[in-house]
Amino acid sequence: MERIEFICVGTELLVEKVNTNVILVSGYLAKVGLILQRNTVVPDSEEEIAACLRESLSRSQVVLVSGGLGPTFDDVTREAVASVFQRKLIFSSEIWENIQAYFHHRQLKIPEIAKKQACIIEGSKILPNKRGTAPGLLLEEKESGKVVILLPGPPSELEGMLVEYVLPFLKDFFHLSEKKYFRFGIAGVPESFVEEKSCDLRKRYSDKVEFTIITAPGMIELLCQTTKENENLCLEMEKELKEIFGDSFLGLNPPTLPEIVGKLLQQKKLTMAAAESCTGGLLGARITDIPGSSLYFKGSIVAYSNRWKRRLLKVPPTLLRKYGAVSQEVALAMAKGARKAGQADVAVSITGIAGPGGASPEKPVGLVWMAVVLPDKKTASRKFLFSGTRTQIRERAVFSALEFLRQEIGNWEKKK
Amino acid sequence: MERIEFICVGTELLVEKVNTNVILVSGYLAKVGLILQRNTVVPDSEEEIAACLRESLSRSQVVLVSGGLGPTFDDVTREAVASVFQRKLIFSSEIWENIQAYFHHRQLKIPEIAKKQACIIEGSKILPNKRGTAPGLLLEEKESGKVVILLPGPPSELEGMLVEYVLPFLKDFFHLSEKKYFRFGIAGVPESFVEEKSCDLRKRYSDKVEFTIITAPGMIELLCQTTKENENLCLEMEKELKEIFGDSFLGLNPPTLPEIVGKLLQQKKLTMAAAESCTGGLLGARITDIPGSSLYFKGSIVAYSNRWKRRLLKVPPTLLRKYGAVSQEVALAMAKGARKAGQADVAVSITGIAGPGGASPEKPVGLVWMAVVLPDKKTASRKFLFSGTRTQIRERAVFSALEFLRQEIGNWEKKK
Repeated sequence: MERIEFICVGTELLVEKVNTNVILVSGYLAKVGLILQRNTVVPDSEEEIAACLRESLSRSQVVLVSGGLGPTFDDVTREAVASVFQRKLIFSSEIWENIQAYFHHRQLKIPEIAKKQACIIEGSKILPNKRGTAPGLLLEEKESGKVVILLPGPPSELEGMLVEYVLPFLKDFFHLSEKKYFRFGIAGVPESFVEEKSCDLRKRYSDKVEFTIITAPGMIELLCQTTKENENLCLEMEKELKEIFGDSFLGLNPPTLPEIVGKLLQQKKLTMAAAESCTGGLLGARITDIPGSSLYFKGSIVAYSNRWKRRLLKVPPTLLRKYGAVSQEVALAMAKGARKAGQADVAVSITGIAGPGGASPEKPVGLVWMAVVLPDKKTASRKFLFSGTRTQIRERAVFSALEFLRQEIGNWEKKK
Repeated sequence: MERIEFICVGTELLVEKVNTNVILVSGYLAKVGLILQRNTVVPDSEEEIAACLRESLSRSQVVLVSGGLGPTFDDVTREAVASVFQRKLIFSSEIWENIQAYFHHRQLKIPEIAKKQACIIEGSKILPNKRGTAPGLLLEEKESGKVVILLPGPPSELEGMLVEYVLPFLKDFFHLSEKKYFRFGIAGVPESFVEEKSCDLRKRYSDKVEFTIITAPGMIELLCQTTKENENLCLEMEKELKEIFGDSFLGLNPPTLPEIVGKLLQQKKLTMAAAESCTGGLLGARITDIPGSSLYFKGSIVAYSNRWKRRLLKVPPTLLRKYGAVSQEVALAMAKGARKAGQADVAVSITGIAGPGGASPEKPVGLVWMAVVLPDKKTASRKFLFSGTRTQIRERAVFSALEFLRQEIGNWEKKK
């Protein structure tokens, strides 16, 4: 198994930069099928970094280290790594020239401390940094063949180095082209349901495929890792999973739920509108996360007050009085109103009680009604009772509405 | 010194959830002045978790562990921790009843595997989880007095447990009440600006106060740590910072930007509406994150297409033709249209190019126009050029609109 770790150096333990780097590294590694065995954040301390690197090297074949290569007093990664490898720091006139050129190009005066960045660890390979001054360094432990790669801390510099040097190196080092990764998506059901229903299948394939179940936004994902010769198993498994999960199954390597809905709308040449109450615009936000969504998404009327429901969505006041804003009747009227006001083919509505206030004995926090109106004016409605915080209820409502839309639009053509 | 570490368990190394948890934990700890010594992410492997916990316990007094408490086969944190402490797992009928009630409330069938979550480590203290099924567990190592706290992995559950149990425990354990923490908020300026402008002040107070600058949603925060006897320094500093940052200064321990705007609206007895284009509903979503926002927020018209801008916001077609949808003129017309359609006192509009497509030489990706209409029909508009990804541009636009609203509504009364 490939053993790789990431050490993120920075007193910025509090700041998002560190987490940006963790996301960057794990994201890029995932693309080539690598999972970090460890991901450690250490403060800018020579002893801490050295201790951490020793531990990591005792466990893993490759250790990526980012940060602490800058020119200031608290940048001590080079020193720490040199001490672990018992090597010297030497001045590289080649790097110094690059740094001078970098400052010159930006018409900046070169600060004296910049010279520190021209120091490299004896016997290391220099990885030029096109986006900043501190180059990366690659070191190999002679006896063990283990590798440490030092990378700059600023996210954009780190990203450049990952793409240009680290991924190609790792593909080669770990012979990754022989491994295959794929995933299946299932929407609208809890993780434990997927676990239980897929148990038998996972057992049967367990000698050839490694499985992981994760919760992604709006869906549960079954991640699979296998070898090149077993690659075609994914097609067999896809068929079996389709039978197990039916309409909830999103297929092999599915895009996100907003993307799936967007593609369905485009395939069927439909436009859509939304009417939101408790989600406050979050459904529109998720749909428009997708670049190019203006091709099918016309807009959303966020009617947070009853007056807006009446005025902008033309919900009959009698319905609001008789059934209340959170009801099947009002959800249907909202969807119809949005479809008409926005001259769209399809419309979806969400009305509910996100809490913590606003509940009554008959209408508890988490109660959400949704409706869909289809091009032939056929309607469908669903009732949900979500648990969790206000944020969770709103998010679950949005993804349930997208899944509702996916099924209704998907089935709509069938009926025609 | 307080030594505390965080171990985040999850094969979801790929997913943002892990990073969300790292941000959550370091953020909450920062609020009580604690800095994580290490922050390690390990996959769902019993040996990995156990090895990592042993190392952490050898270094630190408190180790927080999140994730791997779920019901599925790859949730093995309980087992790993039990092995490190050489204790047994025992079935808790108390927890089992809670889990049954949780499923019952959601009208779901209880899967057989859910029983696993009712197992606790012998001698551990149960920390009830109000937002999910897996409770937290607190274990103390008899001889050393070191503490391990197991917490659920889903971010909202983790957050609930941090606030309810972990922070109060840590305050007590580390005697943190003798320390004082406060923070100042500054909106609408970059981190480096706050760094530079506050440099002199930070130097002057450096023997009594420890400073950290972090980026929070919509604002830069200057975190301060001091002792009880120096607590009153915050008032002096507040005055000085007000002078340095003027209108951008949000004061001592400010709430979030959506809350600040909501409070301002309520103080001035105003209602608001929004018209969104490139943000697709995200502004409405952020405003309605706040419980009770229906008191002042009427709704948002997400006019993603030009037709919606014309039909629902009554933007004159000539303006759209002459200036294009992303222009000062259309932003002003959108805000006026939303105010009128929604019968609100104040309205804000956002129209821009979030990218990656849709740009032209005159209108690059990141160009965003906003407008505000005030109760006396006075208008204001602002032009922004944001950099970053589609997601970043949209988020920056939303927080800039909130900051724009805050300043305009704040100044509006002054003029009266």
